[in-house]
Amino acid sequence: MKKHRSLKAILSGVQNGKIGIEEALTKLKHFPFDELTHTKLDTHRELRKGFPEVIFCQGKTVGQIVEIARAIKKHGDRLLMTRASEEVYSAVKALLPGARMNTLARTIAYAKHPVVYASRPVAIVTAGTGDIPVAEEARETLAIIGRTTEQFYDVGVAGIHRLLLHTQELDSCAVAIVVAGMDGVLPSVVGGIVSHPVIAVPTSVGYGAHFSGLAPLLTMLNSCAPGVAVVNIDNGFGAGYFASMINI
Amino acid sequence: MKKHRSLKAILSGVQNGKIGIEEALTKLKHFPFDELTHTKLDTHRELRKGFPEVIFCQGKTVGQIVEIARAIKKHGDRLLMTRASEEVYSAVKALLPGARMNTLARTIAYAKHPVVYASRPVAIVTAGTGDIPVAEEARETLAIIGRTTEQFYDVGVAGIHRLLLHTQELDSCAVAIVVAGMDGVLPSVVGGIVSHPVIAVPTSVGYGAHFSGLAPLLTMLNSCAPGVAVVNIDNGFGAGYFASMINI
Amino acid sequence: MKKHRSLKAILSGVQNGKIGIEEALTKLKHFPFDELTHTKLDTHRELRKGFPEVIFCQGKTVGQIVEIARAIKKHGDRLLMTRASEEVYSAVKALLPGARMNTLARTIAYAKHPVVYASRPVAIVTAGTGDIPVAEEARETLAIIGRTTEQFYDVGVAGIHRLLLHTQELDSCAVAIVVAGMDGVLPSVVGGIVSHPVIAVPTSVGYGAHFSGLAPLLTMLNSCAPGVAVVNIDNGFGAGYFASMINI
Amino acid sequence: MKKHRSLKAILSGVQNGKIGIEEALTKLKHFPFDELTHTKLDTHRELRKGFPEVIFCQGKTVGQIVEIARAIKKHGDRLLMTRASEEVYSAVKALLPGARMNTLARTIAYAKHPVVYASRPVAIVTAGTGDIPVAEEARETLAIIGRTTEQFYDVGVAGIHRLLLHTQELDSCAVAIVVAGMDGVLPSVVGGIVSHPVIAVPTSVGYGAHFSGLAPLLTMLNSCAPGVAVVNIDNGFGAGYFASMINI
Amino acid sequence: MKKHRSLKAILSGVQNGKIGIEEALTKLKHFPFDELTHTKLDTHRELRKGFPEVIFCQGKTVGQIVEIARAIKKHGDRLLMTRASEEVYSAVKALLPGARMNTLARTIAYAKHPVVYASRPVAIVTAGTGDIPVAEEARETLAIIGRTTEQFYDVGVAGIHRLLLHTQELDSCAVAIVVAGMDGVLPSVVGGIVSHPVIAVPTSVGYGAHFSGLAPLLTMLNSCAPGVAVVNIDNGFGAGYFASMINI
Amino acid sequence: MKKHRSLKAILSGVQNGKIGIEEALTKLKHFPFDELTHTKLDTHRELRKGFPEVIFCQGKTVGQIVEIARAIKKHGDRLLMTRASEEVYSAVKALLPGARMNTLARTIAYAKHPVVYASRPVAIVTAGTGDIPVAEEARETLAIIGRTTEQFYDVGVAGIHRLLLHTQELDSCAVAIVVAGMDGVLPSVVGGIVSHPVIAVPTSVGYGAHFSGLAPLLTMLNSCAPGVAVVNIDNGFGAGYFASMINI
Amino acid sequence: MKKHRSLKAILSGVQNGKIGIEEALTKLKHFPFDELTHTKLDTHRELRKGFPEVIFCQGKTVGQIVEIARAIKKHGDRLLMTRASEEVYSAVKALLPGARMNTLARTIAYAKHPVVYASRPVAIVTAGTGDIPVAEEARETLAIIGRTTEQFYDVGVAGIHRLLLHTQELDSCAVAIVVAGMDGVLPSVVGGIVSHPVIAVPTSVGYGAHFSGLAPLLTMLNSCAPGVAVVNIDNGFGAGYFASMINI
Amino acid sequence: MKKHRSLKAILSGVQNGKIGIEEALTKLKHFPFDELTHTKLDTHRELRKGFPEVIFCQGKTVGQIVEIARAIKKHGDRLLMTRASEEVYSAVKALLPGARMNTLARTIAYAKHPVVYASRPVAIVTAGTGDIPVAEEARETLAIIGRTTEQFYDVGVAGIHRLLLHTQELDSCAVAIVVAGMDGVLPSVVGGIVSHPVIAVPTSVGYGAHFSGLAPLLTMLNSCAPGVAVVNIDNGFGAGYFASMINI
Repeated sequence: MKKHRSLKAILSGVQNGKIGIEEALTKLKHFPFDELTHTKLDTHRELRKGFPEVIFCQGKTVGQIVEIARAIKKHGDRLLMTRASEEVYSAVKALLPGARMNTLARTIAYAKHPVVYASRPVAIVTAGTGDIPVAEEARETLAIIGRTTEQFYDVGVAGIHRLLLHTQELDSCAVAIVVAGMDGVLPSVVGGIVSHPVIAVPTSVGYGAHFSGLAPLLTMLNSCAPGVAVVNIDNGFGAGYFASMINI
Repeated sequence: MKKHRSLKAILSGVQNGKIGIEEALTKLKHFPFDELTHTKLDTHRELRKGFPEVIFCQGKTVGQIVEIARAIKKHGDRLLMTRASEEVYSAVKALLPGARMNTLARTIAYAKHPVVYASRPVAIVTAGTGDIPVAEEARETLAIIGRTTEQFYDVGVAGIHRLLLHTQELDSCAVAIVVAGMDGVLPSVVGGIVSHPVIAVPTSVGYGAHFSGLAPLLTMLNSCAPGVAVVNIDNGFGAGYFASMINI
Repeated sequence: MKKHRSLKAILSGVQNGKIGIEEALTKLKHFPFDELTHTKLDTHRELRKGFPEVIFCQGKTVGQIVEIARAIKKHGDRLLMTRASEEVYSAVKALLPGARMNTLARTIAYAKHPVVYASRPVAIVTAGTGDIPVAEEARETLAIIGRTTEQFYDVGVAGIHRLLLHTQELDSCAVAIVVAGMDGVLPSVVGGIVSHPVIAVPTSVGYGAHFSGLAPLLTMLNSCAPGVAVVNIDNGFGAGYFASMINI
Repeated sequence: MKKHRSLKAILSGVQNGKIGIEEALTKLKHFPFDELTHTKLDTHRELRKGFPEVIFCQGKTVGQIVEIARAIKKHGDRLLMTRASEEVYSAVKALLPGARMNTLARTIAYAKHPVVYASRPVAIVTAGTGDIPVAEEARETLAIIGRTTEQFYDVGVAGIHRLLLHTQELDSCAVAIVVAGMDGVLPSVVGGIVSHPVIAVPTSVGYGAHFSGLAPLLTMLNSCAPGVAVVNIDNGFGAGYFASMINI
Repeated sequence: MKKHRSLKAILSGVQNGKIGIEEALTKLKHFPFDELTHTKLDTHRELRKGFPEVIFCQGKTVGQIVEIARAIKKHGDRLLMTRASEEVYSAVKALLPGARMNTLARTIAYAKHPVVYASRPVAIVTAGTGDIPVAEEARETLAIIGRTTEQFYDVGVAGIHRLLLHTQELDSCAVAIVVAGMDGVLPSVVGGIVSHPVIAVPTSVGYGAHFSGLAPLLTMLNSCAPGVAVVNIDNGFGAGYFASMINI
Repeated sequence: MKKHRSLKAILSGVQNGKIGIEEALTKLKHFPFDELTHTKLDTHRELRKGFPEVIFCQGKTVGQIVEIARAIKKHGDRLLMTRASEEVYSAVKALLPGARMNTLARTIAYAKHPVVYASRPVAIVTAGTGDIPVAEEARETLAIIGRTTEQFYDVGVAGIHRLLLHTQELDSCAVAIVVAGMDGVLPSVVGGIVSHPVIAVPTSVGYGAHFSGLAPLLTMLNSCAPGVAVVNIDNGFGAGYFASMINI
Repeated sequence: MKKHRSLKAILSGVQNGKIGIEEALTKLKHFPFDELTHTKLDTHRELRKGFPEVIFCQGKTVGQIVEIARAIKKHGDRLLMTRASEEVYSAVKALLPGARMNTLARTIAYAKHPVVYASRPVAIVTAGTGDIPVAEEARETLAIIGRTTEQFYDVGVAGIHRLLLHTQELDSCAVAIVVAGMDGVLPSVVGGIVSHPVIAVPTSVGYGAHFSGLAPLLTMLNSCAPGVAVVNIDNGFGAGYFASMINI
Repeated sequence: MKKHRSLKAILSGVQNGKIGIEEALTKLKHFPFDELTHTKLDTHRELRKGFPEVIFCQGKTVGQIVEIARAIKKHGDRLLMTRASEEVYSAVKALLPGARMNTLARTIAYAKHPVVYASRPVAIVTAGTGDIPVAEEARETLAIIGRTTEQFYDVGVAGIHRLLLHTQELDSCAVAIVVAGMDGVLPSVVGGIVSHPVIAVPTSVGYGAHFSGLAPLLTMLNSCAPGVAVVNIDNGFGAGYFASMINI
């Protein structure tokens, strides 16, 4: 990448009269877009720096992951890895002894100075036990950001009383993440009961005409209960990240 | 179609010695399949003659429909027409003054001697008002067969208490037909509450990622609640016919 | 529906000794689920009664719509109709002279005592002019709830500078609704720039391999930018309702 | 979960005059939904307790399965496991020596006191030998519930006389489960012959434009023969459970 | 298009010595591909000239169709138009008084000197009355080519005895075209009975999960009965053309 | 299965006067469908006995396959196995020492008395080398039936001159099987050149938007060239069987 | 939108010493992104200003279109409208008397000073006459940009010699746009013959398993012939625009 | 294949008078199409011989690949293998010691006399690190053809400033290949910034509703930014080949 003349040099020229205002204007108009842009966006990034760095491990080699983790470690103090293997954990552990793996969620989390926001919790609800790994990915995401959570696992509509039992506790949360495979019915039912937003997460748990999560995805997108929005199939991280920004 | 030598002629030949047994066996082995077949199947048909004749009007001209109705009238005393228009009704009315149209269901029914089975009723449940035409097609189908029904309309999960209110009445029916468009969630919820079979009918009521009924169809096929089977989108007739044969 | 013995009668019986405690317990256990349920849910409904009644007009006759509107008018003072026609508007106008139609959004809104929440606004962003009707449906939904909005229309990525121009204003909103047809790229780009949640709404604006909104729906579900959740194709109401509950 | 004041305490208060009727009504209205609900649903569950507990093993570890089996064993005397492996069987065998595996069906069944209903049998029909595992899953499901079955395996329409041979026997059953992969044609043919309901089960047996069962699923949903309803691809358990509730 | 030096001129040059063999070879190697090609293909075309010209009218204006018909009339004596309207017929009638429209098939046929091949007939079979237009398009196609046909209409599997009645007649044909909408089951059943090839034609007759013919198309492609090949949905012409070349 | 009174006994009764004609007629009308049916179909089967027995090995155990092979061996002298493994071959070899495996086609063929029909050959054409296994399955199918073939492999349109080179030889065949994956273009091109029927076989060779053969399947179904019919993806056997019945 | 302090004011402050360099740097870093961005992008836009403004008329009212056209007219001298109706043409004609409509292409073009690039032409090829409207949209797009074209219409592979006839002329173009519906085979064949890039345009011309252009789209994406890229179904404009930038 | 009489023999016959012109014309008209065709196409092929031979290794055995490589080596001096394994590399290395493998791209390249065109470079842009293998396949393809490239990897829109930083460099290239999985948004954004053609390559990198690349494929086909054309999912070779022919 070519070096650009610095902003400072232009301003100095204006100050000491070597560059006229019109000339400076022209220069600035053609001034490399990037420099200002970069600064601006970085500043802007600073404002939300509360969020730790995240590495989506799937499709990366252990070597690549460790290299990225090392780079992040230099200028940050929190790190989340999703879709990580045990092998990745061994390698990361050597670099960050305080890192902790959640084998269900397949996440690795590291926080030098853990934070917790004082706010209403995020409810995390699953229909079946098979949906728990996705729910746990959401929970770990919220945990490293510092948002509190409350779990309601295995309360699918085949035994709807298990869900109804928790109506009040559910409704006292700030937002709900509802994770369901199979028919994906749960978010609609929860959305009909609570008065806060519901983030629906379809999972790939199912078989036959489930088409790896397409069935619950469509169910959720067509939810009759208003107040339901949807993220990608199995995207626990996305649901957690989205929830972390809501109703703090 | 060619005429076949009659069975009777062969038997007479055997009786009067003109045809030997071996020869008769050969003849019978090559005997036109159809004649016996036809008889057999007709006898078999007789056994279930309780069911009236049905005309699916969609894609047929008024002339064709009237012609079929006239033929049925000759040897039957009950008739059901589905997907019928007002124009068809006018024409049929002239032929069968006792015929009655259900404009919501778009059905025309005629029964010289109406029958009613003494049996537990069939519950017909809909999620929204838009699903009622399909439910009514099921109800008319059951009515002309003589099966009693009980309706629970507009009890979708967005206001789940409307459904729960009716738990006991629902459960006292012999079978439930549950009709739902949008997310198609209702049959799963009903299936989790009642102890009898649930026939789920997806409808084409919806928009966007609903894909004309594909979304609720998949929801229903993947139902977590056991005891749910599914018929084609908008197939109120099929659901009614299927239910009519259950738990009489 | 059968009448149930009232709760009060059971309690009176206990009080005057006519019903023993064990007997009362048994009665209560079999007590019609519905009554309590109903009360409970209605109370719960009361808590969020801020939300006006909504009628989805598509697929309903003018007669049906007016009837529902009349019922709502009795016990409420706000009303929103979506996917309404001019014909519906004429009929509703007679009933509710203060009703106002937004012909772009195809909504009819009525509020006896309009409210406005004091909160950061909801940004409503569209890629093209064809997406504006869906955006307007979202805006009307937010308006009748009392949430303020700020519009950024026609800022699609084909002329990405139009979007970048508004980075700061966008980022000062509480949440963004981003509406896009065609390639559905805009929510990903907005999500990469702002630090609050993005609600993505795919629209059916497009042709060919757009498949009536499937293309932008998939784009949005797969967004690389975290903090994006999706509602159904053309579901401006759903996006507005969801946004209304966020970061007030 | 918070403890709630018991119902009994409220009734005692009413009885001994410490709680007035109005006060009690208020308490009951806010009475934790769940307790009554739970009781009610459990009672209701009792009514259909004929059905044994079922564990869908796919996606669960051996440890998880054994733990669930142990819990069920405590308060039940029948157990069915579907999609089980030999490894699961070894572990379950140690816990329940009387358990029996059907390796074709991949089910494990255990019944301390086997029951058999006196009722017309359920016909189980398959098109090809490849469809037998799904049929066997249905058969095992019916067996543990106590419903008798009659098998008609490998009678697909490529050799339609094999099916026609059994017309009478088929028709004497109470209901038929028809299992077919490939073109999924068999349920339509059986539905055209018998006078009782047909539960169609598409299987994932096929290749090419079969799309893992989509082809027979669509065939069955569009069946011209009335009296056919469909369950999910390969869902032998669902078909068996549904059939168990029919025409006993 | 540029004129090319004719082949004859090159050969004359060789004959009279003005062009050497090497030079001629070079010329021929660069000789406009097209000329020879054209000739060759035309010759080849001549060999199969038995087949009349065909105009697919859908998407063409009446003007365009008449113009093409006029061109064909100059050098041919047979003409077939598919997907034609009454309006087209009026216009064509003026040009070719002997033309004849089949309103069911929506075809217009004209033959100055009708021919009939002496060969076993082509069986044309339909499942329902709704499939007849497609069958008639096939029949008209075969008729103008001169191939005899035998019709078996409305013999769908819901009343399978109607089909079995005709086993022998069906089997005595040279090839069968089997047309079916809904579940598309009929070609599999016919294929299991006859010993000659079956050309399966799915139709767009159906609703719901029929997806405009996708359901019967998949059924037919997955047929368990060998000896079945498939043409496009509603492609009666294609089936007729294909059949016309078989087992003459 | 119950034993039925034999036909012979009835006829004897008629002959010796013990059974009257009317009584015999009644008996015959209720005569077990199956027996005649079976006979009839077997006779009919006899007529086409030219075709050897076929075992589709995929999804069957070696044990099952050997068992079927042994049964066939008893009353037949030819056998074809498709989708066979080397392991199956070893087992079959022990039973039928004359069996021969084609490892490309994954077929095993056995014929005690090989036959060859005197007829025009079937052309087998492939687009690429990856399509050859499917072509070879077709070739083996034709070989065991006794039909001669001519191969034109690897003549895809990327180098269209390779195909055009063979126009005359192609056209002198009785029918062509054209096998192609990727874009599935070849059958359309062949169909535009030859004057006999083309059986198109899509293969699963491809990647990306090929969707395991869906792309060439759709290409072929929509072929502009008349005279093209299609079989299932990778269905070399089906194409060979279909071709074997054409233009002998 | 808030007004931003101008760049010029900052520079003046630096020049007259009222603003120090560090302060100016800070100001510039936070300087509204947009202003510079806008300028930059506009300059950049200027560089390619050869391209006229384009209005996609579908889904816009005549009023909206005329308003946009009026705005463009102010600062430009060329205009292209796609998917325009006759009604739009009447309105535009009043504004721009020199505008010219192509009714086949449904485009309206206006150029005060028409330009023509000196470059090799763009070949525009269609398979059938039904594909011509899309081809004409591409041609009009290229015409208003000033790129020359050469048409090869109706040269589909059903009569492949028509295409081969033009090999040399085709190959002498700079790039080819190949438009095809039905099976979409033509771009693969052209790609196998010419040595320049082929832009494939699938059209919605077809029926049945064509799925409104999906079939040819997949064919083209899977083309065996390298050198083929694809644009959206019916996107003649996109193909023309893309081609206009190639090999000038 | 039969031997044909050579062209030369015919010309000699004409020269020496043994063959008359008419006779020669007839012979030539029936002259085996192939010979001329072959020559013609080979000549034509010669013109673009710049392009090396390519072997798509997927689905071929090592033996087959080596055999093809050996054949190519005889008459060419450049070779590219795509989708190659390490095992293939070992075998090829023995044959062509100068061959070089790119393990990321899974390509093997060999060039006796490497060439480099003097032309503006082709930009290769990727959204994420997971898209790099496909980008590298494109780069290797361009390298062996001799076209220079410039890489812009990992500049996806989640951090859009990384892309904007490179606007000028990007725009100075002749054409851009933009590779993206997930939401496939990047080509639209690049297309909105640069003034040269963009070749979009969707990748199979993603999960859930990504459907192995379908999501980014649809995004790209529907791009709002004109000047974007698309190749198959993961088709780095196709993109590179297409780009190599543009704006040299």
